[in-house]
Amino acid sequence: MTVQFDRIALIGIGLIGSSIAHDIKRLGLAKEVVIATRSADTLKRAEELQLGDRYTTSSAEAVKDADLVIVSVPVGASESVAKEIAGSLKPGAIVTDVGSTKASVIAQMQPHMPPHVHFIPGHPLAGTEKSGPDAGFPGLFEGRWCIFTPIAGTDEAALKRLRQFWEALGSKVDEMDPEHHDKVLAIVSHLPHIIAYNIVGTADDLEAVTESEVIKYSASGFRDFTRLAASDPTMWRDVCLHNKDAILEMLARFSEDLAYLQRAIRWGEGDKIFDLFTRTRSIRRSIIQAGQDVDAPDFGRPHPLEKNA
Amino acid sequence: MTVQFDRIALIGIGLIGSSIAHDIKRLGLAKEVVIATRSADTLKRAEELQLGDRYTTSSAEAVKDADLVIVSVPVGASESVAKEIAGSLKPGAIVTDVGSTKASVIAQMQPHMPPHVHFIPGHPLAGTEKSGPDAGFPGLFEGRWCIFTPIAGTDEAALKRLRQFWEALGSKVDEMDPEHHDKVLAIVSHLPHIIAYNIVGTADDLEAVTESEVIKYSASGFRDFTRLAASDPTMWRDVCLHNKDAILEMLARFSEDLAYLQRAIRWGEGDKIFDLFTRTRSIRRSIIQAGQDVDAPDFGRPHPLEKNA
Repeated sequence: MTVQFDRIALIGIGLIGSSIAHDIKRLGLAKEVVIATRSADTLKRAEELQLGDRYTTSSAEAVKDADLVIVSVPVGASESVAKEIAGSLKPGAIVTDVGSTKASVIAQMQPHMPPHVHFIPGHPLAGTEKSGPDAGFPGLFEGRWCIFTPIAGTDEAALKRLRQFWEALGSKVDEMDPEHHDKVLAIVSHLPHIIAYNIVGTADDLEAVTESEVIKYSASGFRDFTRLAASDPTMWRDVCLHNKDAILEMLARFSEDLAYLQRAIRWGEGDKIFDLFTRTRSIRRSIIQAGQDVDAPDFGRPHPLEKNA
Repeated sequence: MTVQFDRIALIGIGLIGSSIAHDIKRLGLAKEVVIATRSADTLKRAEELQLGDRYTTSSAEAVKDADLVIVSVPVGASESVAKEIAGSLKPGAIVTDVGSTKASVIAQMQPHMPPHVHFIPGHPLAGTEKSGPDAGFPGLFEGRWCIFTPIAGTDEAALKRLRQFWEALGSKVDEMDPEHHDKVLAIVSHLPHIIAYNIVGTADDLEAVTESEVIKYSASGFRDFTRLAASDPTMWRDVCLHNKDAILEMLARFSEDLAYLQRAIRWGEGDKIFDLFTRTRSIRRSIIQAGQDVDAPDFGRPHPLEKNA
């Protein structure tokens, strides 16, 4: 493929950073990749995995002469990274991030960005429940959305270059304003994770049912929640703290709806229950039709003798 | 394999009933299988799929001379089925069910069972989000638990025969008292389904985020819930109405825990959030170690370029 940037600096090398690294190498998108992370152990592991060309624990060092800087850290660390790199950024460099919340990242980074760089906030909607540099793999972004939330007056040429980069990784790029992004993600991603963490916690605390029973019989529904509840705790703590308003709004609605359903169960109002349970089924069908999930039963988990297994 | 019963009657031929039918045929466990369902259309479909040897819309007709009767209907229909079949059951017949709630099924069926039959309540913990006779497949029960909740004084020989039947289908059989079963299932199955239905309903009702946005970006977490929320509405309405006490207890705990988490988010208490998110991760690991789920990221959904894809 075509070299798109002479030097790319990756700040943070977890699941997302390392997946980007795999793809840059696979597709030959840069002449040189510099990797920075604060933890010496993580940096060593990135080097063992040969994810880049140079390695440093200094973000400031890493961004020197980089044409593209991709910040892939928990959103709560955005401001400290912005402060560290600000003085070393090359004029004309594109600085982007991959954070799951956008208004907060902009508030943390934008004030520190020198006028001679192009800061374009971004969010690839991709990932798994695994974390760390070993969790990354080539192709993670293939067919997935990447949402930019550009600041007014952003240079069109820079925007186009960054779009071409994500498109080279196989992503489809969307643009949105940061507040709307944060609301959309609150319902499609943040609330599901919080609810999943919460139900797994509730199950863990029961006295009447043992943890070994929960584990043994988890295939009856519970295990579907445990995947999300196994996601990186630091990343998700930061999401909760940095998209607070939208998350609290969604939580309030969810709890209100749950109280309605709980009341229907208590009073034996079968019709209300049936109506909700019917409505939700059609949403699943729409998701499958939109190609956002597989139609195989049970997410296509192996069933020993099934025809399609 | 060995013929275990001369005649098996299957009352109800949805996902579970039809999967049992597939396995009986595949394994040669009966000389004759009689299928009964109230809906003429469903019965016709069962016949087209060649799931049995004889077909009738009369449960009473179906159970005549049957050595094993398996009732696979929504739990709310248990009493009417028990009434219908009671007068036609053969002396010495084993009558079992597959219902997701056990105390209620026993209360509905037991009073109608003649003394000359062996009524053994059962619950195979298996299924997918699909429903109806087309949803069944051979091997559904392979490696899955089947829980018996036998009534005091149940004939040991009958219990053993039923156990052998489920073991022939590949299941591991457990015994439990019905009240404990209902508590265990309330947390591992009923609460997860109710929460999944609820969150999908909440998302469907939003004004600030369109349904098409929810669908488009669902891969960020939301879609994991939609599988459960696509389950059979009639079956799940009945579960809600027939395991009310245990479900309300679990819902109360869940809501209490969610209020605690919500408060931590509102007040920016990162440590509390981090602690919960860390604890839940280890439960996921235990479920994978116990062989109750796959270790592949994202439930093993296909990622285009991944090494193991």
